[in-house]
Amino acid sequence: MQVEIKPPYLLFLGDEPGVGHVKTAMGIAFWRPDACLGQLRLPGSGVDLGLPDMTPEEAALAGVKTLIWGVAGVGGMIPEHWTPTLFSAVEAGLDVCAGTHTSLTAVPGLEEAAKKAGVRLIDIRTPPKDLPVGTGERRSGKRLLMAGTDCVVGKKFSALAIAKEMTERGMKADFRATGQTGIMISGGGMPIDAVVSDFVSGAAELLSPANDDDHWDVIEGQGSLFHPGYSAVTLGLLHGSQPDAFVVCNEVGRETIDAYPDFPVPSIEELIKMTVAIGRVTNPDVRCVGVSLITSSLSEAERHSVLSSTADEIGLPCVDPVATGVAPIVDYLNDTFGGIEQ
Amino acid sequence: MQVEIKPPYLLFLGDEPGVGHVKTAMGIAFWRPDACLGQLRLPGSGVDLGLPDMTPEEAALAGVKTLIWGVAGVGGMIPEHWTPTLFSAVEAGLDVCAGTHTSLTAVPGLEEAAKKAGVRLIDIRTPPKDLPVGTGERRSGKRLLMAGTDCVVGKKFSALAIAKEMTERGMKADFRATGQTGIMISGGGMPIDAVVSDFVSGAAELLSPANDDDHWDVIEGQGSLFHPGYSAVTLGLLHGSQPDAFVVCNEVGRETIDAYPDFPVPSIEELIKMTVAIGRVTNPDVRCVGVSLITSSLSEAERHSVLSSTADEIGLPCVDPVATGVAPIVDYLNDTFGGIEQ
Repeated sequence: MQVEIKPPYLLFLGDEPGVGHVKTAMGIAFWRPDACLGQLRLPGSGVDLGLPDMTPEEAALAGVKTLIWGVAGVGGMIPEHWTPTLFSAVEAGLDVCAGTHTSLTAVPGLEEAAKKAGVRLIDIRTPPKDLPVGTGERRSGKRLLMAGTDCVVGKKFSALAIAKEMTERGMKADFRATGQTGIMISGGGMPIDAVVSDFVSGAAELLSPANDDDHWDVIEGQGSLFHPGYSAVTLGLLHGSQPDAFVVCNEVGRETIDAYPDFPVPSIEELIKMTVAIGRVTNPDVRCVGVSLITSSLSEAERHSVLSSTADEIGLPCVDPVATGVAPIVDYLNDTFGGIEQ
Repeated sequence: MQVEIKPPYLLFLGDEPGVGHVKTAMGIAFWRPDACLGQLRLPGSGVDLGLPDMTPEEAALAGVKTLIWGVAGVGGMIPEHWTPTLFSAVEAGLDVCAGTHTSLTAVPGLEEAAKKAGVRLIDIRTPPKDLPVGTGERRSGKRLLMAGTDCVVGKKFSALAIAKEMTERGMKADFRATGQTGIMISGGGMPIDAVVSDFVSGAAELLSPANDDDHWDVIEGQGSLFHPGYSAVTLGLLHGSQPDAFVVCNEVGRETIDAYPDFPVPSIEELIKMTVAIGRVTNPDVRCVGVSLITSSLSEAERHSVLSSTADEIGLPCVDPVATGVAPIVDYLNDTFGGIEQ
């Protein structure tokens, strides 16, 4: 009942002159080097992810199962000169996965070609059909949710980094994707913001199903409870995830909600208080276990100072997942919930 | 950008033996007697709303514009022996409006017939296309939202009663419907629980647009912030509505969320506290102005006791909209926000 994408991947980069529009592909290559067998660039491309260049035919021979549309065209459209690649991928027997505004099925003839070739066109913005209403029923296993003060504050990166840290320590853990890039990285997930509002918490329940008692689902968050546009998504995800624990994600220095200059970003304390107050509805024991900050605008000395003062104020570990890694949060989680002895 | 239904109406009651399945029609007849010109019953019907019996042809001659599907078939389906009525309505030049699970367009041949006749098939569960993301921008006019401790606690009835009381006092007020029956009653609105989660608050903004400074939108609530399944709908509606004021709707004696026996209904105080805490994101001045209780399980003496003790505890007017009317809430609202002198 989740969106599913078969690895390994061929990453399509188009003819983008720079990396600005290929962030999706970069994220996939960074987090899933094992799953990325090649890249496909058109003449004029100025990007190199360091992967072997392959045609769809070569990729199919190398074992690739899916062409990932790793670029964002202007306005989410699919430029006409990129469409021949879609057809050659389909004809080579590859599934095609994209998150473009223009649905793949809107490309004239592509659906028929895919049907004929027996491959799938995966529109990652389309949620599964027949999603249920959330039941609120407790399920086995443990869940850690990223809670943002805003959009674009490192929720996906933090979740991926924590899941990786856990796995490397031999803990049972899965990253659970709720957004397009996350779904492409992990090969599955739920495009939660595209789900009809009645079914958001039900979709979140499906995304993190019952599991072993010592298994952690590390769930990518979306939006913010304090976001004037996206709070519904955030609350449905919170209630459906029933998190045992959450990590606050925040960008140092951001004062107002991204693209909403009249709306202040909440303080970390406010977000913790609100998340506990309303998250208690489906998990009375929900608690914050750490803070993950974007500090890339700071000097090394400033970063050190902000991380330690925040940790002191909140009384919880505070990291920059890029600069310091997330080990202190996983340590704290294991101290709190019991984990694998190191 | 809202769903719109043209009055006056012909109410279709099918061949239902009793009133249990024609609550929608009863609600419309109760709240919009002016808009209901007739009823259409099939042989075997045991229901009479006291309206003239009409065929679609007779209704069209009498000026009716829309046949309202006022019955709920088993599982929301449209039984085959009811479909001839749909065709005669369309052929008589009436729009048809329904909220059935089976879409009207799924009835074989009906869409073609409607096209030929130049009438609309209005599936009230389908939200408008191209809804925007909520902006959070303040708009003129005042808004009063119903906030429920649960589903089915009188939110629609309370909102309709308050809007009626306001209008009768000469205040500028509109009921704003967020659910199917409410939309049929008012002839317009937004099926908010069918909106994709990213756009719920944007849809709520459209539902209660800028208006005169002394105009009240009285907005039907949905779900509850404490509902494990529907809280996303509730929060998106709250943030998009930017209510200046809210009324808590609750049923006396209900201890757990309807159909969720493991989830307690929050106390009125808890709901007020939570609604203010999170509603402040888009309206820092949001406040509770009263409590509306369903007390139909109580004796007259018990009701009086509960209403007065609740009013004392909360420090706000407390009514049963059916038994006592909602005047004390409108009085309090006018005292608080300034209104028409009585």
